[in-house]
Parts: sequence; C-alpha cells; structure tokens
Amino acid sequence: AETIELFRDWHKGERESQASLEQLLSWELDVLAVDEETLALRALSVLDLWGFFNRDDPSVGVAAVDISRMQGFLSDLYHHYHSSNPYHNFKHAFSVMSAVGNLLRLCGADEFCSAVEQLALLVASLAHDVGHSGLNNDYYVKKKHALAIRYNDQAVLESMHSSLAFELILKEKNNFLADWDEEAFAEFRKTAIAAILATDMKVHFDLTTQMQDLRSTPEVDTSCPDTKILVHKCLVHAADISNPVLPTSMYEAWAQRVATEFYRQSQREKSEGLPTAPFMDSSPDDRAEFAVLQLGFMNFVVAPLWNAMVDMWPQLEPRRKQLAENVEYFKKLQSCAEKKDTEQGSPE
Amino acid sequence: AETIELFRDWHKGERESQASLEQLLSWELDVLAVDEETLALRALSVLDLWGFFNRDDPSVGVAAVDISRMQGFLSDLYHHYHSSNPYHNFKHAFSVMSAVGNLLRLCGADEFCSAVEQLALLVASLAHDVGHSGLNNDYYVKKKHALAIRYNDQAVLESMHSSLAFELILKEKNNFLADWDEEAFAEFRKTAIAAILATDMKVHFDLTTQMQDLRSTPEVDTSCPDTKILVHKCLVHAADISNPVLPTSMYEAWAQRVATEFYRQSQREKSEGLPTAPFMDSSPDDRAEFAVLQLGFMNFVVAPLWNAMVDMWPQLEPRRKQLAENVEYFKKLQSCAEKKDTEQGSPE
Repeated sequence: AETIELFRDWHKGERESQASLEQLLSWELDVLAVDEETLALRALSVLDLWGFFNRDDPSVGVAAVDISRMQGFLSDLYHHYHSSNPYHNFKHAFSVMSAVGNLLRLCGADEFCSAVEQLALLVASLAHDVGHSGLNNDYYVKKKHALAIRYNDQAVLESMHSSLAFELILKEKNNFLADWDEEAFAEFRKTAIAAILATDMKVHFDLTTQMQDLRSTPEVDTSCPDTKILVHKCLVHAADISNPVLPTSMYEAWAQRVATEFYRQSQREKSEGLPTAPFMDSSPDDRAEFAVLQLGFMNFVVAPLWNAMVDMWPQLEPRRKQLAENVEYFKKLQSCAEKKDTEQGSPE
Repeated sequence: AETIELFRDWHKGERESQASLEQLLSWELDVLAVDEETLALRALSVLDLWGFFNRDDPSVGVAAVDISRMQGFLSDLYHHYHSSNPYHNFKHAFSVMSAVGNLLRLCGADEFCSAVEQLALLVASLAHDVGHSGLNNDYYVKKKHALAIRYNDQAVLESMHSSLAFELILKEKNNFLADWDEEAFAEFRKTAIAAILATDMKVHFDLTTQMQDLRSTPEVDTSCPDTKILVHKCLVHAADISNPVLPTSMYEAWAQRVATEFYRQSQREKSEGLPTAPFMDSSPDDRAEFAVLQLGFMNFVVAPLWNAMVDMWPQLEPRRKQLAENVEYFKKLQSCAEKKDTEQGSPE
C-alpha cells in the first residue's frame, strides 16, 4: 500500500518521461527545495531514463530489472530514512545519487563500469545513509551502543546502512535481483557494499592518495579490477562530500544542516556525560566558526580528492571553479563575522 | 547458577594453584584428552597464575580484574561454544589460548604487550570462535544468510565472534572491565577486536608478508603502535593455525576433526543445492587426500608464517622442528595410502 501511495503519480502515467537525465541530475538543481516524495519519484525516473527497466535495451543487458520490485524497494528505502534529521535524510540521499549519476555521465561510466556496476552505484548512493539516526560513528563507540558492539567499532553506521539496504532489497516483494544469475548478483552486491563502506570518512585520506596516484598514472588500465573498484569508491565518496562543489547558496544551506545535526549531537553528548568533538561543539549560529570549519573542510578534505578527479576527468572542471568560488565566499563570511564580533565587543 | 556449577571445584578450594603456567600451557599437553569443563577451569587458572586477579601485583597494575566477574564471563563464553562441532568447540578455543599463552611467554610478552594487552590477547584467543556453528564464512555468503547480510560478506564469523564476546563481557555480572578507566577499556577492546578479526584466513597472506618484513628489519621498534598490533595479530593467528606445530598424534587428531567438520558442511551444501569447495568435498576417511590437504596447509600456509616467527624469536625453534617432523609423517601417510589404494585396485 505504501509503495502504491509513494508512486501514485507514476502510476497515474505522470512519469517524468519528458524530463531528460541532464535536467534531473543538474548540479544546479536545488534538491532542498523539492519535497522528499517527489525526490523518490525522481530517483525512479533516473533509473528509468538510464534504461534499467527496459529489457530490450542492449546497453543494459543483464542489468535489466523489474520496475514494480524496484518501486517496492525504493518505497521501503524512503521510509527507512529519518526525515527528522536536519542533514542525513532522504534529500541528502537523493543529492548523492544525483551527483553519482552526474559523475557517471561526465567521467565516462562505460569505461570503468559495467551496466550491473552502474545500477549498483546508483542504488548504493541512494541507500548509503539509510537508517541514519543523526548521530555519528563516534557517538555509538563512546556510548558502547549495541550497534558499535555489533560492528566492533568499525565503520559502525556504514556497515549498518549497507546491511539494511540489502535486507530491504532481499525482501521478496522488492527483490529486483531475484531473477539474475549468481554471478551478476555477486557483482552487484560487491560493488554496492564497497561503495557504501567507502563513505566512511576514515578511508577518505587513503582513497584520496590512491586517486592522486591513479591521476599520475600515464596509461590507466580501465579493465584492472582494483582500478575499477577504486574509481567506483571515489565516485560515491566524492559525491557524498560534493556539497562544496555545488552553487554557493545550496552549499551553504546543506552545510547549515550538517552544523545543526552536529550541534544537536554535541548537546546530547553533554547531557549524557560523554566527551564531545570540538568541531561539533559550536552553535551553527556562530557564523565565524561555521565559516572556519567549512574552509577547513574544503581545503583539506574536499579539494585534494576533487582536484585529483578533475585532473583525471577534465569534464569536471566547472566543479573546481565552483569550489574556488565557495572558498572565496566563506573567506568573506569569516572576515565579516569576525569584524561583527569585534564591533559587538568580544572580550580582548 | 551455571557459573557456580562450572567453577564448583575452584570454589571448593581446588584451584590448580600447585600447577605452574609451564605445565598448564605445555605444547605437549593433549587438550583433546581433557574434558571441556576442566579446560574452562584451566583457562581461569592461566589468568590466575598470570596474576590478573591480584591487585597487589605491580606487574599487572591497571589490568587487575575481579575474579567472580571473570568467572561469570568464562561461564557464558563456555556455554556459547557448540560442543557438537567436531572442531570449532571449546577445546579448540582453549588450545588457541594455550598457544597464545606460550607464545607470549616465549616471545617476551613484556616487550610487545602491556599487561592490558596481554589480558586482551588471552581473553580474545579463548573467545575467538565463540558462537561458531561449524559452518564457514563461505557457507553464509553463498546462502545469503542473515549473518552474511549483517556483516556485508566481510569477516562474517570473526565479526560475530568478536561482537558476541563483548556482548558477554559487557553483561553486568560479567563485566570485569567495569571499574577500569576509559583509556584502559579502549586499549583492551581495540587489542581484542584486532586479534579476533586477524583469525579471518583472508588476512593470512597479508599478515605473513608483514611478519616476514618485520623479521628482516634490523632494529625493531617495539614501541611503534603498528608494530605492536602486527605482533598481537600474528600471535593469535599463528596460535589459531598451530596444530601443525604440535606433536604428530595431536596434530593428526585435530586435523581429523577439521576434515570431519568440512565434510559435514560440504554434504549439507550439496543437500541445499549450493556449490561446494573442493578441499571440503572428500571424506575424512580418504587418507591419501587427507594427507595431501595437510601437506598443502603446512607448506603453503603454516610454514611461511611460523618460519618468520621462529626467525624472529629463536626460542620457538622446537616448533619448526616439530613442523618438519609432521611434514615427514604426512608424506609417509600419503605414500602408504596411495600404495594401498593402488593395491586395492583403483580404476586406471
């Protein structure tokens, strides 16, 4: 019933068949301005326009899936995101799927990905934070929470997201992989798991170093399995930290939501007597601190990975330009906020 | 009640205080000839003789723990091993703890391990297979079993063993770590998790290469955290595959149990329509095949790691000698069995 409810417009024949992938995936599209149900519909449209529901499309081949099962899965996935989270909600999920779709198109998906892998990456990016409660790994570990015990303090949330995603996929009514052979299933599963686990920030610096090495390789062997998996992981992880390559107003709105979620956690940790992380401690209303944190994130986390990717795929050059603009914006925000603080008389 | 039952002899004052660690941990001690309850008592004795229940022992220091909570934990641990498994039962667990205790003593525990780490390694080795059902990771993955879904096909059993061990430790009646500070708790937890996850055979070749590199390092920095963790992992993993360095009759009896457990799994897989692994397919009664498998295991798996460790710690030299004897024994076993097969007229 929920599935039908969520996709009622689709079933009324209003599938967005007129829209193109370019329009649906545009970097300029303000995801925060769209309601979550519409985004679920768009996620289905992206897969539809990609050809995955068309068994006659030779470019899709073995990766063709049943649309009603995919609807069942997307509906369950949608309902397992917490819309009460300021940041880790279905809008973020769609935003990352959209970025992955864009990257696949711009970076020549066919070079590094089979059709099965493309489906796995699109599904994984939409599922990569499913079940997120608005608290990070560190909270679960410090709390000795049952989830941290289950996952031995290692990639606690990411392991849960991946596991939950497959739990939902494997439900009979949702299992769009049920009629695939074991080999294709294994390829899908391996790719999707690797992609979701690569969104653990703990592997960021390692992934970045590997992508920088790949960029410096004269002739990349696109058929090498390790290279393919590295590219898959980087696509999804880069998409997960792609807010700073979006138009400034969109980036700022997302960042504000991250800061709010972090601050809520830090307040909760204080009330529970747990230690807090300095970067989560300041109120999102402290504009100077907010700007400093975003500048650090852009310069030391996002830029090294994205620059390596732009070097590798020059079609991404506009993203580097956008990132530079955002750095300038937050520099100004910082100096304005600090000036204001001084004028209002902070203690010297 | 179960705790008291299991440790009744201990409480009657019959703790094996007369025995020495040397006697309890001897490589020559035939663990299979001892009943499981007695082994549980001995595990407690090992920790007792190590000094962990003596808060006044300066060499134990912050690692001192409450004996009644440890008894509660050991009792729960004991009851979560499946005695119906031919191989992965409490006897194997004790045998690995015993080998780790030996390695710690022979390799100079104090050089690479704090007292907290020594306790963590001894507890981890006893807990490293808790909850094992007699089926390996591959079975769970092929079956798309809920446990494989939970752990994303990665170190499925080892992740569960470690998680279950801490679930049991953190029960209030068992929590021998409850009055430790957060730092000591974190050290224990990190060490124990790393040790249990290192028993995944998937990391064997990587660990072996790293130990070979360490052996070739002119001056080992025993205070380097990465080196310490590598040594911890190798101690527990080497102990887990230490049957081939035990006296021949004991090794053969353990190996027979492994072969029986593998064969049961392969029979089950056939009945469930799952693919089987060639090395699990042959009956343990096929002596020639049994010998060939053990020779492969010794030459290609056990020897590279154990040789590197003997080079690093010459006190382990008798183990290398024992391994060589066992290779000779199984070579003879193979040729005898093949001769017999030929005489009985196998199809030419």
